[in-house]
Amino acid sequence: MSYTLFYSPGAASMAVHWMLIELGVDFETQLVDIDSGAQRTPAYLQMNPTGTVPTLIVDGVPRHESAALLMLLAERHPAAGLAPSPASRDRAEWLELMIYLANTLLPAMRDWFYAGIDGDAIHADAVKALAQRRIESAWDRLNSHLADGRAYLVHGKLSTVDLLAVTLMRWSRNMRRPATTWQHLSGYIERLRALPSFIDVNQREGLTDWSNSTGRPEQ
Amino acid sequence: MSYTLFYSPGAASMAVHWMLIELGVDFETQLVDIDSGAQRTPAYLQMNPTGTVPTLIVDGVPRHESAALLMLLAERHPAAGLAPSPASRDRAEWLELMIYLANTLLPAMRDWFYAGIDGDAIHADAVKALAQRRIESAWDRLNSHLADGRAYLVHGKLSTVDLLAVTLMRWSRNMRRPATTWQHLSGYIERLRALPSFIDVNQREGLTDWSNSTGRPEQ
Repeated sequence: MSYTLFYSPGAASMAVHWMLIELGVDFETQLVDIDSGAQRTPAYLQMNPTGTVPTLIVDGVPRHESAALLMLLAERHPAAGLAPSPASRDRAEWLELMIYLANTLLPAMRDWFYAGIDGDAIHADAVKALAQRRIESAWDRLNSHLADGRAYLVHGKLSTVDLLAVTLMRWSRNMRRPATTWQHLSGYIERLRALPSFIDVNQREGLTDWSNSTGRPEQ
Repeated sequence: MSYTLFYSPGAASMAVHWMLIELGVDFETQLVDIDSGAQRTPAYLQMNPTGTVPTLIVDGVPRHESAALLMLLAERHPAAGLAPSPASRDRAEWLELMIYLANTLLPAMRDWFYAGIDGDAIHADAVKALAQRRIESAWDRLNSHLADGRAYLVHGKLSTVDLLAVTLMRWSRNMRRPATTWQHLSGYIERLRALPSFIDVNQREGLTDWSNSTGRPEQ
């Protein structure tokens, strides 16, 4: 069982890349140069008509949607325990948080970064203002979720929810209020960034600007 | 195994209500009167801090997020076959479409109906314009998906994807371009609306304005 991941450094594909490393499975990567528009070439669009990353080749078929890919990989590699089993009481919370990230935080991030491309540039600021409100509200909610002292978002055990959440938290690093400025998210992010698989995915993607190793407090 | 569903007629809770009927399981319902603000009472917010429907009581615990609830119910009642089994080749497509509906169509619908409440009223038209573009683009994509003549969205078999998609398609009935005006969606919607479980959920929720029984062409 091997995979090929089409990715762009730091994009939503990073969560899937991180998971493939965490699983320890065989996979190959193909860089998609977003800046040069490689996601809009006919060859890429044939694999992924939405022109986004990630695309993951699974059993020879291109598959999309980062949250769906994380859930699929968790099912295909149950021994890694990156999702509670269907029989577990934690399953409902895991599903709920995966969907929450997918239908609240991800689309707000899309608006924040692409309002002027997806829609009219003249209205981008209005769309971004609403996106910012929703993003900060999501940090509030996830912060509350961690207020009971749990180490990870679902029952204190690393899961796909953390891989997706932290990938999205990284995107806030240059926003007015980065996720790292929330009380409980701060320690959570430090803990996740210390994982060898997170350090590895950053190295593989050439990312250096959101790690624990800088020795400076995170802004 | 019984459930209590907190719902509002025609809201996202309709997909979960429809599924409970299709499953043939025991359940109770509690109407949440959105117009009078019942979703913002302290008692409701304690169950569901987002102040939205649905809330589904599962094993005594309130659970949220319509897409997550559909996936959870499919897992708890596998014999009903409303999701491909994890071992099935169709599983990836099912996951991908569930996430696509959750992270593209649902948030765009949220923007369409609530732009002026979630954000500044003065910017609502700008947010709605982008939402409309995304909603119509989603109908394009789902229409293409059905162009091969399949009866349902995932491998020609009724699944949670259809329950969520059709609930959302219903919301377009008063928009500039309702989903029913897309070539392949038209027949698909007619087919889904003919299901006894769909007729039943409409009757239970007191809905009469989007059925096959009117004898008039759908606008």
